[in-house]
Amino acid sequence: MQTIGYAAANPEAPLAPYTFERRALRANDVAMEVLYCGVCHSDLHSARNDWGWSSYPLVPGHEIVGRVIAVGSEVRRYKEGDRVAVGCMVDSCQHCDQCHKGEEQLCREGNTGTYNGRDRITGEATAGGYSKHLVVREEFVLSVPDALDIAKAAPLLCAGITTWSPLRTWNVGPDSRVAVIGLGGLGHMAVKLAVGLGAKVTVLSRSLDKAADARELGAHALLVSTDATAMAEAGSSFDLIIDTVPVKHDLNLYTPLLDVDGTLVIVGQIGPMEEMSTTPLLLGRRRIAGSPIGGIRETQEMLDFCAEKNILPDVEMIRMDQINAAFDRMEESDVRYRFVIDMASLERSQ
Amino acid sequence: MQTIGYAAANPEAPLAPYTFERRALRANDVAMEVLYCGVCHSDLHSARNDWGWSSYPLVPGHEIVGRVIAVGSEVRRYKEGDRVAVGCMVDSCQHCDQCHKGEEQLCREGNTGTYNGRDRITGEATAGGYSKHLVVREEFVLSVPDALDIAKAAPLLCAGITTWSPLRTWNVGPDSRVAVIGLGGLGHMAVKLAVGLGAKVTVLSRSLDKAADARELGAHALLVSTDATAMAEAGSSFDLIIDTVPVKHDLNLYTPLLDVDGTLVIVGQIGPMEEMSTTPLLLGRRRIAGSPIGGIRETQEMLDFCAEKNILPDVEMIRMDQINAAFDRMEESDVRYRFVIDMASLERSQ
Repeated sequence: MQTIGYAAANPEAPLAPYTFERRALRANDVAMEVLYCGVCHSDLHSARNDWGWSSYPLVPGHEIVGRVIAVGSEVRRYKEGDRVAVGCMVDSCQHCDQCHKGEEQLCREGNTGTYNGRDRITGEATAGGYSKHLVVREEFVLSVPDALDIAKAAPLLCAGITTWSPLRTWNVGPDSRVAVIGLGGLGHMAVKLAVGLGAKVTVLSRSLDKAADARELGAHALLVSTDATAMAEAGSSFDLIIDTVPVKHDLNLYTPLLDVDGTLVIVGQIGPMEEMSTTPLLLGRRRIAGSPIGGIRETQEMLDFCAEKNILPDVEMIRMDQINAAFDRMEESDVRYRFVIDMASLERSQ
Repeated sequence: MQTIGYAAANPEAPLAPYTFERRALRANDVAMEVLYCGVCHSDLHSARNDWGWSSYPLVPGHEIVGRVIAVGSEVRRYKEGDRVAVGCMVDSCQHCDQCHKGEEQLCREGNTGTYNGRDRITGEATAGGYSKHLVVREEFVLSVPDALDIAKAAPLLCAGITTWSPLRTWNVGPDSRVAVIGLGGLGHMAVKLAVGLGAKVTVLSRSLDKAADARELGAHALLVSTDATAMAEAGSSFDLIIDTVPVKHDLNLYTPLLDVDGTLVIVGQIGPMEEMSTTPLLLGRRRIAGSPIGGIRETQEMLDFCAEKNILPDVEMIRMDQINAAFDRMEESDVRYRFVIDMASLERSQ
C-alpha cells in the first residue's frame, strides 16, 4: 500500500514530506492507521546520523498509537478498529532464549528496529511512525486499554517502557527508595511510574528550579545535586537511581547516594561516560547497570498498569509540519515533557 | 602485654623491628600468638601512604593465623591452643542493620581495620599481624579447621574472602560461567574458589604465557584479551567476571563479554577507572559492581569450604626480615601468588 510520511533524505536535511510503499499484508501482519506519534531524542539522533548507523531516506517514530485497519489471515489477537500501539521494535528471531523469555529487546540475533532496521524476510528498510500507515507482525503489536487517553499514550511506547523495565528488573515496590536524574521525557515517566508502584521518589536536579515540577509529577522530594551538604546527608539512601541524562556525565556525584547493594541504572546516555572512581562501588557493594527498552509482554504490562493507575505522559501536541522546530526545541530541552505529533495533521502537511 | 613486630615509621621508611604494647585482655578478647601472616598489596599501599590515610608507626598485616594463648573471662567460643585467624577487620558497631545481617564489613559506622584503624573504646591505633601477638574481640576471630594447612591458610583471610564474597553474592554454582581478570593473589584464589563451587572458569590474560598457570589452578580455559577474534567470539558468554586488576584500567574490553544481566565485579582497583562506554551496559542490561571483603560469618563459611574442598593459596614463605624485598618483588608481580611470613622468624629478625 502506498502511504505518506515525513523523512530525512540525508543527515543534513530537515524532515520533509515523503511518499513510500508499506508492504502488502502477510498472514501474521496487522495494518494500522497511525493516530499519534511521540517524538523521541532517538528520532533526532537517527535523522542526523549522530550514531553513524542511519540509512536514508529515514522515517523516524517509534512511539506509535493508532487503529487497526486490516489484519492478515492468521492474525487472532486483533481486528479492524482495535486501538493498538507499536514501540521501538517490530520483529526479533522468536526462537532464542531471550525471545522465549519475552525479552525480545535482547534477542540474540538483534531485534528489528521500527525504523532504520531491516525487514527479516525481505531485507527492506523499516520505516517508523511519522507516517499515515504502519504494517507490523502481530507479535509486536500492543493493545491500548480503553481507559488510556490515546492522544497522550504514545510516549509510553519508548519513554514509558524504558523507565518501567528497570523499575521491574530491580523490583521496585512500596518499600523502595528511588531517585531520578534528569527530568525530561524519560525522567518524568520514571517519576510517575515509580510513584505508581508505591516507591518513595526523589528527583535529583542541579537547582531548586525543578521543585514545583517534581512535586506536580508526584515526587516526594527534590535533592539539589550542587548542594554538597544535602548530597552528603543523602549518602547511602537510595535503592535504585534511574539516570536518564542523555549526554556524557559524571557518575561520581551519584554513586555514593546508593545504599549497600543499590544500583544506578543508565537509560539515557549511549556512549562514553566521564572517568569514574570505583571507591564508592567497592565500599558499598554498589552497582552500575544499563537497561534498554523492555520486552513486548512487559510493555503490555506497563500499558495496563498505566490504564489502571491513570498514568499518562505530559505531552505537547504538534502538527507534522512543526517537527523540525520541535527537534530544535528538544535540543534546548524546551519541552514538558514530550512532543506528540497529531497525525491527522499529516495530510494537510504534504 | 609487650610484643614485637615490624612497622613503617613513616611513608618513606622500610619496615623495621618495632616493640609495642598490646592491650590487656578485655572480657570478650582473645589473645593469639601469630604463626603466619600473609602479605597483601594493601600492606604495601598502607605502609607507603599511597591512599593518604595512614598513621604511623604502622604495623601492617591482615591475613593472620595463629594459636590462642589466652582468653577474656566472657569468651566462650575459643580456648587456649585453638587454631584461629583474623582478617581485615577487628571490630564494628554490632548494632546496625549490616552488622545484624552479618555484613560487618559494611557496618554503617565503618568497621575497624586490623591495622591503621582506631580501637572503638580507647581510640588507640590498631596494629596488624606483622607481630608476635594480637588481641582481638571474640566476634572477629575465625576458627581455622583442622583440615587446613595453617602454614598456607593465611591469605584466605583477605585474598580468599575478597573473591569468595562476590562468588556468593552473585550465586555462583555449577551452571555458572565465571571469568577472572588478573592472576595474582586475589585472582588465583578467585579461580580456585570458583572451580571449587563447580563453575566453568576462564582466565583472561594479555598473553598465552599464563595458560599453564591457569590450568594448574584448575581453570578450564584461558582467553587472550589481545586476540580480537577470540574476544569477539567470547561476547556475551560470562555470567560473572571477577576483576582483580589493582590499577586503573579499561573496562570497555571486558563488559561485552558479559551475558545479559551479567556482572563485572571489581575487587582490585580502589580509585579511578578509565573512561567507560555505557553502550554494552545498555544493549545487554549488563552491570558493573564493586565488592569489598566479606562478613565474619561468610569468612568462616569460606574457611570451612576450603577445608572441605582442600583449597589453599599457592604461597611463597619468607622470613620477617625479607619483607622489604618481598614488597619490591610484589610491585613487580614477581610472586606466585602470595608471600606468607613465617612469624617464627620474627625473634631472629629483631
